[in-house]
Amino acid sequence: MASDDIREGEIAVTPPPPTDAGLVFIGRIRTPWTARSETPRQGSFDGPICRLEIFEPWTQALAGLDKFEQVQVVYWLHQARRDLVLQRGHGHDGPRGTFALRSPVRPNPIGISAAALVGIEGSTVLVRGLDCLDGTPLIDLKPDRCVHSVVK
Amino acid sequence: MASDDIREGEIAVTPPPPTDAGLVFIGRIRTPWTARSETPRQGSFDGPICRLEIFEPWTQALAGLDKFEQVQVVYWLHQARRDLVLQRGHGHDGPRGTFALRSPVRPNPIGISAAALVGIEGSTVLVRGLDCLDGTPLIDLKPDRCVHSVVK
Repeated sequence: MASDDIREGEIAVTPPPPTDAGLVFIGRIRTPWTARSETPRQGSFDGPICRLEIFEPWTQALAGLDKFEQVQVVYWLHQARRDLVLQRGHGHDGPRGTFALRSPVRPNPIGISAAALVGIEGSTVLVRGLDCLDGTPLIDLKPDRCVHSVVK
Repeated sequence: MASDDIREGEIAVTPPPPTDAGLVFIGRIRTPWTARSETPRQGSFDGPICRLEIFEPWTQALAGLDKFEQVQVVYWLHQARRDLVLQRGHGHDGPRGTFALRSPVRPNPIGISAAALVGIEGSTVLVRGLDCLDGTPLIDLKPDRCVHSVVK
């Protein structure tokens, strides 16, 4: 953690200990990208298929997900530092507040992506549209609110 | 927690301890609703103004958020049980997998709402569109991906 250098204008704080609530990893995301330099800036529904491997005892919770075309994937950016309040984004002029950016660096490094549901094979969900590293821990999966279920 | 009765067809599991990662509450959400029976089923951009009170040391991280019209509010549903894999949603015929519902009851009870940004007053962000209880812990705040910033 916190291994990246701070750039000009960026501000780090001493964060309180992250002990207000605890997460359980419900699965693991398999993607083609094993280094941050390889990941796309943003996922695309035309991108490669990524696999969400769901752990027990949660696999039963997938029942009915196949009726949706689009899912919201929630994951834990386990390599991100958590202490920057001002940081430089891509293509911005100067530093900006963390809450005004979708950077992985934030007090609680939770990533939220909309993904296209390709299919479900046993305990594995196939999607397109992610941009995270291979091995990223999965913390939640929900139907995307803006998209209605398709009657099959 | 887990104080609600289980209804017909619902299935609870014994979840692993939630110790894979830790969250820090970055603020508190003030809404008009103090009991679950009062909260709307889904927030509306025509709904009442809700206040996101940001705690130190995170207030500097709001810099630049005022350029966005819509924000993604991420919060911790602290009253929700975490052990159901099949549950009954509103208006559905039978039980459905937790990951096929946007119910607050899930392994990691994280709520994600799009909200309209009304304004920022010091360390407080005013929004419309939430549906959570007064006092709900805030865990993140980001520009909504689908909406571009407005040049002011």
